[in-house]
Amino acid sequence: MDRRSFLRTSALGGTAAAATTLAAPAYAQGKRTLTLVTTWGRGLAGVHDAAQRAADSITAMTDGDLTIDLKAAGELVGAFEVFDAVTSGQADMYHGADYYFVGQHPGFAFFTAVPFGMTAQELTNWYHHAGGHELHDELGQIFGLKSFLAGNTGAQAGGWYRKEISGPEDFNGLKFRMPGLGGKALGKLGASVQNLPGGEVYQALASGALDGTEWIGPWADEKAGFQEITKFYYTAGFHEPGAALTLATNREVFESLSPAHQKVIEIASGETHQWNLAQFMSNNGEALQRLSSSGVKILEFPDSVWDAFGAASQEVHDENMGDELYKKIYDSMQSSMKASSGWIKRSEGTYRVQRDRVIG
Amino acid sequence: MDRRSFLRTSALGGTAAAATTLAAPAYAQGKRTLTLVTTWGRGLAGVHDAAQRAADSITAMTDGDLTIDLKAAGELVGAFEVFDAVTSGQADMYHGADYYFVGQHPGFAFFTAVPFGMTAQELTNWYHHAGGHELHDELGQIFGLKSFLAGNTGAQAGGWYRKEISGPEDFNGLKFRMPGLGGKALGKLGASVQNLPGGEVYQALASGALDGTEWIGPWADEKAGFQEITKFYYTAGFHEPGAALTLATNREVFESLSPAHQKVIEIASGETHQWNLAQFMSNNGEALQRLSSSGVKILEFPDSVWDAFGAASQEVHDENMGDELYKKIYDSMQSSMKASSGWIKRSEGTYRVQRDRVIG
Repeated sequence: MDRRSFLRTSALGGTAAAATTLAAPAYAQGKRTLTLVTTWGRGLAGVHDAAQRAADSITAMTDGDLTIDLKAAGELVGAFEVFDAVTSGQADMYHGADYYFVGQHPGFAFFTAVPFGMTAQELTNWYHHAGGHELHDELGQIFGLKSFLAGNTGAQAGGWYRKEISGPEDFNGLKFRMPGLGGKALGKLGASVQNLPGGEVYQALASGALDGTEWIGPWADEKAGFQEITKFYYTAGFHEPGAALTLATNREVFESLSPAHQKVIEIASGETHQWNLAQFMSNNGEALQRLSSSGVKILEFPDSVWDAFGAASQEVHDENMGDELYKKIYDSMQSSMKASSGWIKRSEGTYRVQRDRVIG
Repeated sequence: MDRRSFLRTSALGGTAAAATTLAAPAYAQGKRTLTLVTTWGRGLAGVHDAAQRAADSITAMTDGDLTIDLKAAGELVGAFEVFDAVTSGQADMYHGADYYFVGQHPGFAFFTAVPFGMTAQELTNWYHHAGGHELHDELGQIFGLKSFLAGNTGAQAGGWYRKEISGPEDFNGLKFRMPGLGGKALGKLGASVQNLPGGEVYQALASGALDGTEWIGPWADEKAGFQEITKFYYTAGFHEPGAALTLATNREVFESLSPAHQKVIEIASGETHQWNLAQFMSNNGEALQRLSSSGVKILEFPDSVWDAFGAASQEVHDENMGDELYKKIYDSMQSSMKASSGWIKRSEGTYRVQRDRVIG
């Protein structure tokens, strides 16, 4: 697959080309307002909070010299239209999950999460200290974007089902919502996979257009209300072991900002990433208990299903390897994951086992 | 133990009292330089980097309107003198590990790490979303400090020994470096515990003043050179399951800053926390392999030692429970840890097990 096949005319003809020819910085004077569009309905637990946190931090740190005006999904453009809105210059920034844009380039999946990929901590390691951010830049540059990770849901739940999953054959014909490369892997098992924005999932599930869905984890899922419709909940999934969120700025806009304001966007994003991950992790435990008490059956996939997930995921990765940049990102991610996962298991992993054993 | 027994005259008579009576904000005009003292020798891997990252972010985000002048340990005051320097107003901020100051109040231990306490992620959950930061504020206010977490080493290694540890009796009489409540627990096993700043440990180990030491983890330990002297390395420890670093500002100074600059300090700290944790996690794996290849024996403590660590740690916590604030922080931490650790195990924990099983 040729990299150019992913390019959109809007990005190439417009902002991306302009950004590379900008001769000298011309910082805007005085107060400036940037429009931030998001892939989240206003009030979607956790994910909208991350966008709001980043926006508020930038506005507050600059005393309003750089004011971020947040437009949630549907307020200016639809959830999945934010990429085109920002690359075309209709909006200045988007906050969303980059794997919604695998149609633009499959490499975007790595900056949310990929099947059997990195946990939130491993992703953060790679992003800041093992080349991940540089690759996000290389990918973003094709489309005229300057991106930072700015949120993380942690390891996502396997999702909601109307009946128990006893083997991989149960996915055959199942109408299931799952974005990104995880969804493509589920398709290999025969599922009819749909990619809907978070704000539209409940209705699709209630109407029967979906048999099941994954969304995030107990806290956000409970707020979305999926337990009202489906009663089988799988707590661990293969598809998003630590799903990051991205704050992407139109590159021409970004380069027109002063170095201080560029740094403000970078640091606000990084702080949001950790604050948001902690928000999900802090709320999920009690939400899971409430779901369990309310009659939801809490389950784990059997090994046979995990094996099928593994084979299907590898197939999806292999299909994309013809793209040079995809392969470069994949190899970088794998190498960093191998380097950091061993120590984490040996230190924190052993500690957790001993803490459970000694103090219960 | 009465809380007042922990108070230092300098803090009470000076900045703390002044801060509470400050009638209205009087923001300094123009550029301002704040002096940051640290508990780290210049160049100590990871920990000095965290202090430098926070300082540089603040300076860059304000375009130098708030310039942070970093003085490493020994450049203005000694490593363990930073607390007094900041509470007395001699310096404006310190970056360090708060458990160095358990002599001022044992509650400071919780904002670095306590034995059998929280992992880095659990601590972040608690700090930002379950009352941890508010308790850090309550404790800091006694001494006239405004504090933020700004760095984390992750789960620390069990440390360096001249011979293998086969049972808890091997700690009897051992001259060992371990700060905080972990050190007090080791003392219960008969160890002669010393609390030395990082920059002084190598010399003490080389001279025989110490039989062994813990410092941080493979990457920072290798840079410190302990493998030149001791050959037995324990990868998991009980004492610091996710050791945070703190950026603390003299409260009167903090309150004299504009809300924008206050926010800059807060957000720079949070971003540093995640950047620094990722730095340690990203570097530890390869460093451990190098240590192993160079002849260091990589080991884990036997269960009997972990059991003894558990009993000694509980004894230390119990001794401090007479202090109302200590108990309040302990209870808050335990409750948050219970709420968040279960989900992490069920989601990311299960995922890790399956990833290891399916793709190796």
